[in-house]
Order: sequence, then C-alpha cells, then structure tokens
Amino acid sequence: MRHFTRTEDLTNKEYLEILRRTKIFDEGIARGENFTHLCPGKVIATEFFQESTRTSASLQAAMVKLGGGWFGISGIKGTYLETGEEDLEDTLYGVAPLADIMAIRHKTLDLTKFAGEGFPLPLINAMCGGTEHSIAAVGFFYTVKKYFPNLSKVKMGIYGMTKSSRPAKAYLKVLSRFKVTFYEDPVVPELATPEEIKKIVKKNGAKHITDKLENFIDQVDVLLVVEGLPQAGEDPKVVDKFNENFVPINKKRLAKVRKDAIISVGEPRATTDGRLVALKETDNDPRMIEKEMCKNMVYTNMALITYLLNIKIK
Amino acid sequence: MRHFTRTEDLTNKEYLEILRRTKIFDEGIARGENFTHLCPGKVIATEFFQESTRTSASLQAAMVKLGGGWFGISGIKGTYLETGEEDLEDTLYGVAPLADIMAIRHKTLDLTKFAGEGFPLPLINAMCGGTEHSIAAVGFFYTVKKYFPNLSKVKMGIYGMTKSSRPAKAYLKVLSRFKVTFYEDPVVPELATPEEIKKIVKKNGAKHITDKLENFIDQVDVLLVVEGLPQAGEDPKVVDKFNENFVPINKKRLAKVRKDAIISVGEPRATTDGRLVALKETDNDPRMIEKEMCKNMVYTNMALITYLLNIKIK
Amino acid sequence: MRHFTRTEDLTNKEYLEILRRTKIFDEGIARGENFTHLCPGKVIATEFFQESTRTSASLQAAMVKLGGGWFGISGIKGTYLETGEEDLEDTLYGVAPLADIMAIRHKTLDLTKFAGEGFPLPLINAMCGGTEHSIAAVGFFYTVKKYFPNLSKVKMGIYGMTKSSRPAKAYLKVLSRFKVTFYEDPVVPELATPEEIKKIVKKNGAKHITDKLENFIDQVDVLLVVEGLPQAGEDPKVVDKFNENFVPINKKRLAKVRKDAIISVGEPRATTDGRLVALKETDNDPRMIEKEMCKNMVYTNMALITYLLNIKIK
Repeated sequence: MRHFTRTEDLTNKEYLEILRRTKIFDEGIARGENFTHLCPGKVIATEFFQESTRTSASLQAAMVKLGGGWFGISGIKGTYLETGEEDLEDTLYGVAPLADIMAIRHKTLDLTKFAGEGFPLPLINAMCGGTEHSIAAVGFFYTVKKYFPNLSKVKMGIYGMTKSSRPAKAYLKVLSRFKVTFYEDPVVPELATPEEIKKIVKKNGAKHITDKLENFIDQVDVLLVVEGLPQAGEDPKVVDKFNENFVPINKKRLAKVRKDAIISVGEPRATTDGRLVALKETDNDPRMIEKEMCKNMVYTNMALITYLLNIKIK
Repeated sequence: MRHFTRTEDLTNKEYLEILRRTKIFDEGIARGENFTHLCPGKVIATEFFQESTRTSASLQAAMVKLGGGWFGISGIKGTYLETGEEDLEDTLYGVAPLADIMAIRHKTLDLTKFAGEGFPLPLINAMCGGTEHSIAAVGFFYTVKKYFPNLSKVKMGIYGMTKSSRPAKAYLKVLSRFKVTFYEDPVVPELATPEEIKKIVKKNGAKHITDKLENFIDQVDVLLVVEGLPQAGEDPKVVDKFNENFVPINKKRLAKVRKDAIISVGEPRATTDGRLVALKETDNDPRMIEKEMCKNMVYTNMALITYLLNIKIK
Repeated sequence: MRHFTRTEDLTNKEYLEILRRTKIFDEGIARGENFTHLCPGKVIATEFFQESTRTSASLQAAMVKLGGGWFGISGIKGTYLETGEEDLEDTLYGVAPLADIMAIRHKTLDLTKFAGEGFPLPLINAMCGGTEHSIAAVGFFYTVKKYFPNLSKVKMGIYGMTKSSRPAKAYLKVLSRFKVTFYEDPVVPELATPEEIKKIVKKNGAKHITDKLENFIDQVDVLLVVEGLPQAGEDPKVVDKFNENFVPINKKRLAKVRKDAIISVGEPRATTDGRLVALKETDNDPRMIEKEMCKNMVYTNMALITYLLNIKIK
C-alpha cells in the first residue's frame, strides 16, 4: 500500500515519474484527449475537516477526468463528529471501505502515523497536520520545472511568513531535493522557515539564504509571495509585528522582477489586517502562475492518484 | 469564449439550435440512449452562493448524463468567503482552472460584466444578479414550444409578482422574441413587469396586455402562476398589499382554464403569509407542467453545456 | 415502478436475486472488473435530511461504480426546507424529475406510504422513518450469508438496545425470513425488540430467545453489538437505566466468542454516557465484520440500484 502522507513519501525518482505522468495528462487534455479509461468506476473520498475551495475541487476534478467519481465531507457539519458521537479515526475507518483512495485535510491529524497503523487505502495529504501542504508542492514543482527544466540553476525568492504557510514549507522540502537555491525575506525573523526545514534543505544539498527582498527581487527565476493568513495558533503579537513590516507586492515592485521570471502568490491572499499580499493591480501580470499552477494541480493529482493506485501509464 | 450570462447572450437562431439539441437528448434518453460519449471527463463547477435544490441538481445531472462530473459549493458555509479571507472574484477565478464550465448563483453579481472582464471558462447564469433566471427560461421555452410549436399564436397569462420573480422576467424576455402574446395580472401594480422588460417585449415585436386574471384565464394557452416569495429587498408594505389581494389558484379557478392549456406554478410556492400560490388540490391537474419542465431542464442544460463547450451534435 | 421502501418490499426470491448480483459485483471488482457500462449517465439523488457519513457515501460510490453519478443534500441546511419556504413533499417531488432513482433518509417520513402515492422514481430507504434501516439489512444479510451459507442453521446473538436501533430491527426482519435463530440480551427489557417485530420473526418461522449474553456468547455464529446511541425520542430515564446495566464489549468477553464466529459492532458506537459499546482494544479482532460489511454495502447497493432500475445482469 503506497501513501502520499508527506512529501518524504516519494523518492526523487518517483517525483520524476509523477511529473512524467503529469505531462502526459497536461498535454493530452490540451489536445482534447480523454483519460476516463484509466479509473472507470473508481472513487476518491475527499474528507475535508477544514474548509477548502480549491484543493478538494482539484482532487474531485482529477478523479472525474480519470473516469471515476467522488464522495466526501466539507467541514464537519452534518457528520457524527460534530455531535461528538464518533471520533476522527472511526469516521475515517468507517468510510474507507467505500472508496478506492482517500484525501484528507485536517488541522492536527498526523497522517504519516495514521497511515502507518494499517489504513486500508492509499492516503493523500491535502493539507493535513501543521507541517505541509503536500499535493500543492507537487503542483508547484511541476509548474516551476515546466518553465525552468534545469532546477539546479533556479533561484527562488520567498517573501512572507514561511513558518506559518503549509504550502511554502512543502515547496522548500520538494524543490530542495532538486537543488533549487532559496532566497528568503521572512519580514520578521519569528516567521522565517523553521530550523528543521532549513536542515532538510541543507541535507538535500540545496542552499538557503536569508536576505531582504530588495536584494534578490531582480535576480530570481521564481518569486513566491506567501499567503497572508497565518496557520491557526500563531502568536498574534508576532502576526501584528509581521503586518507592520510587510509591504504588499504592487506593480511598481513587480517591475523589478526579471521579465522571464515566474511569480506565485499564495491564496487566500488577505492578511489579518485586511490587505492583500499582492494587490489586485498585479493580477494581469503575465508572469503570474497561480492560475496555471491550479490547473496543473488537476494533472498532478491525476498523476498521484494513478501512481498510488498502481495504474500503469505508458 | 461563449457564455450564457443572460438571455440576450444567444441569438434567436442559437435558441433554436439549443432546442434542436434538447429534443435529441429528450427523445434519445426516453428511448434509453446514452450520451456519455459527449463530455467524458468534463467538469462543471456549480458555484451556488445562494441556496438551491433544483437548479444546481439539474446542472449536475446534465453533466453526469454527458459523461462528466461536477464539484461545487452550495451556500458560502465552509468557504473562505464566509470567514472573509477571500472575495467573490478571487473565489471564482481560484476554482476556474479546475473546471471546464461554470454555473453561478449569486444575489448581486453582474455576470455579464464579470464574463466580459475575461473569465477563462464558459459561464452559465443559474440565477445570478437580480434580473433573471436565465437557464430556467430555456427550460420553460422548450416545454411551451413542445406543446405549442407555433409560438407566435400562443397567448400566455401571468398571475403574480413578475417584478420580483427572476424566472418570470426571463420567460418574458425569451418568449417575446418568438412573438408570444402576454396577458398579465400583477395583483398590485407595484409588482407588475418592470418598464424595462416591457420595452424589451415591445422591441421584440410581442404584445403585453395588463388585465384582470378573470378576463383572460379562459383564453390562454399557457398560464404562469408566479412563485409567492419576493426577491430579497422588495418593499414589505408592497408585499403585504400583494398578499391581501392575491387569491391562491384552486381547483375551481383552474376549471376555467382551457382543457388544452398548460399551467406552470413557480416554486417555491409558499407566500410570505404562509399560503401556497396554487393549492395542493391542484397538484394532480394533468395540465400542470412544472415537473415536466424540471425534467426538460436537464436536457436544456445538456444542450447549453454542449453548445458552450463547442461540442458538435448531429 | 419498484421501490425498496422497507424490507417487506422484496420477496425472498428477490432477496436471493439481489445477493446473486451482489456476488457478481463483489467478486468482479476484486478481480479488477469494471461495471460502468451498466448505468452510464444514470443519476441517483441522495436526499439525506439527517446526517450520514457512511450510508450516503455507499450509495454514491455504488452509482459511480455503475457508471453514473449523484447529486443530493446532506442535512437541510441550504435548502428551502430550512427557511420554511417549501415542505418535504414539494422538495422531493421537485428534484425527482432530475434523477433516475432516489435514496432518502428522514427522521419521520413514512416512505412506503409516500411511494404508494405515485412517486415517479424508484425509492430507496436509507434509514427513513423510525422503523428500520432497510439497505443496511441487505449489506448485513449478504455478509452473514457469505460466512454461513446455510442460514437456517445460524445462531445470532444480539446485545444492546434493539428497540432503538433501526439497523438491528431491519436485520431481524430480513434474517428471520431465512430462519436464523436469534438470542437477544436487551440489557433492559424496555429496549428489547418490539413485540411487532417479534411477531414478524415468528411469522417468518424463525425463533427468538431472550437470554443473558453470558448464556449464549460462546454458542453463536454471529454476534451483533448494537450501536450505543438511541433513536431520537427514546425515554432518557430508560436510556440511563440501560447505561447503568450495559457493559461494553472488551477483549476478555470476546475471548468467549467462538473462533469461527463473526462479530458486528453498530456505528456510531458511542453511548450517551461517553463510552464505546465495543472498546477500541477489540478493533483488530479478525472476527470483526463491520468494515467488510460496509464495503459489501457498495455491492448490495449496486445490486439494488440495478434491480430497481430493471437492468438485466447475467
């Protein structure tokens, strides 16, 4: 039984296999091809105990495009969990026999441990636990590599609260395996990439440099503007300090970014003081990849689902 | 990119093409045919920011019958919109890359303007903004034309608060293009068809006559009893005045309607003072078309979806 | 029009036909076969007015595996029912034209009566009204017969509040048709199997014996531990008395059960005083069939859906 409970669950070779499949789906669908013969009648359970608008939809769309379907929950309203009649583990084991594969979002569940206790289905981390947003990292990885195939030469700038962003932490873990060099401006040191992630980056043989955005904004191939909303539990004083020092990305600052660079703005982009991490005036900048990455996630999800279900793709 | 953001988005010729496709689906499914080869793996996003029981289901059923699937939201509970972390536009652009076509219900969104700003997917108005319930009009149009192919000879009576009914306003706009003659009893003048709609009817070359129901009930081919619940924002005093003067349709009054006429009762049929616009004793009248029209909406939706996705149907 | 509004809606011969189909799906899917050619484009409406995590998912998964899809509601939030604009009957008749088959969960609706009034679609009782959980009984029936093909020799023990368990009441009604012998310990007499069910069991030619669990636990082929939560409306004093006398099933007690027996623990298994009817330490007992039964329900649902839709299965 293979799972994708965290980015570490796949080897580098497996990531490249996922990307090979993704490319087949991406290019095939663009040509009008149809992949519904791959998972006819297969069912993904999308068990989202925290709200989601994009991630759950990207998994549901992926399974539909593979010929299957989905069932699931979105929030705990209307489940036995809300009434306290059933615990999380019972709920997940309870619906497991009904599906072929399951994706989970939960604030605290340690999915790696949970999977290790013998869960009967392949599990997908759709932002589960505080550590990382695993499947977002695959979508980001594919998108960056599409623009810059030689990742070991890529310089990636990060602006924002990486410590409190599960997507950003996952991106660092995956891209460092392929030797991307990171330049990070955390705005306030308290919200910089945690030491344990920095260690992983280093162990993966990649470089991580902390610097001011103005010092690297004109050099990077990829600029990540982290979403503005911290994870639950973040110290409000630190967040206030962050807000005081954070300057939203506007057109003027984007003018400094290289013409051939790509820019990813985390969503939701509202900060706790009601601003946007990147202003609406930046939306039509052709270097913005958020929407393309979102579309690519349908294909990376298709790749992950077929890989975990052990379906061969030539 | 074609959209159906309002009834004006299609030409008369295109409406007839939609009806041609609808007939193929309607008759084909009745014969046990299967149309899942038309949209295999295609995904419709049903983004309903206001409650719906029928319309969203009719779109989801249509896509399943075309071989695809759906994802969506029903109300804003459990989305970043509820928590104020994301605005409407970000939400819609955020999920757009995940779908092939999108249907939206929203109280105030001007879908025509929104589509005009470059939305990347075909958009369907599933009762969006205050003006009209566009796809309901297509279902109504098909159903009326099925009974009365020569629409220019059709007399249609309307009883109820047209001003405050998005379906009724859409019916007037579409059927007037095909020269249906309207007789309307608005109960109170404040809730009659708005002047701008009357102008459209006139410009389309159709007649609109305001009269008492008793004066036309025995002459019409089609009788529309408008739903009893006004749109949000309607003046409560006007609604009270309406309720005082409105007399629910009962068996006795239906006895005056022609034997070969058809009758449509808008849903939900409860009035704000707890009555029903047409009593339950009228439910089994064989001239009632509401359920047939509801079924037909699956087929008109299939026609719209395939048309907007540029899928050829022979 | 065939319905499955209660276990009495099928003859014994029909139950055996349902089991024949179930076996085809169960074994076929285990071999990697695909049954999406059976219901391409068909739609099941899952109208759950009470919460459900497993049953609705089992019906949705079944239809996906048959090549169709679903729409539905889960709880009444976001429907016209919540706002009081529409009554239950209008809601169900309103969405009926959009689906091919409908499954309903509702606290009080008498589905047999409702179907008898001319509902236009096959109806499936997914725990509707206070009497029984009809489709759960089919899943239980198939699972028990898989282990013990000769049901007339089967001894089934029941521990818990059968009176207040819609699944348990349905199991008794179906298995008694095939001459299973029941031993029941209701913990308190007030929550024993109701007299009308005992009469049905007797009329079906089966035996029902009331005894203490310790007197039959080591003899039964099948042990049913009833879920801990009573139906709404149960007398709280009786439930308190039940809780005082109920002893959760633990490993030690399971040691008395025969090695070749099977054990079913109703879910949700929490009691009103916060215990579990069977402790977590019993979860890995190889005789536990709850998860297998849950999986089998996908196949029994596939069998029921195809049977009610009059689709031939060779």
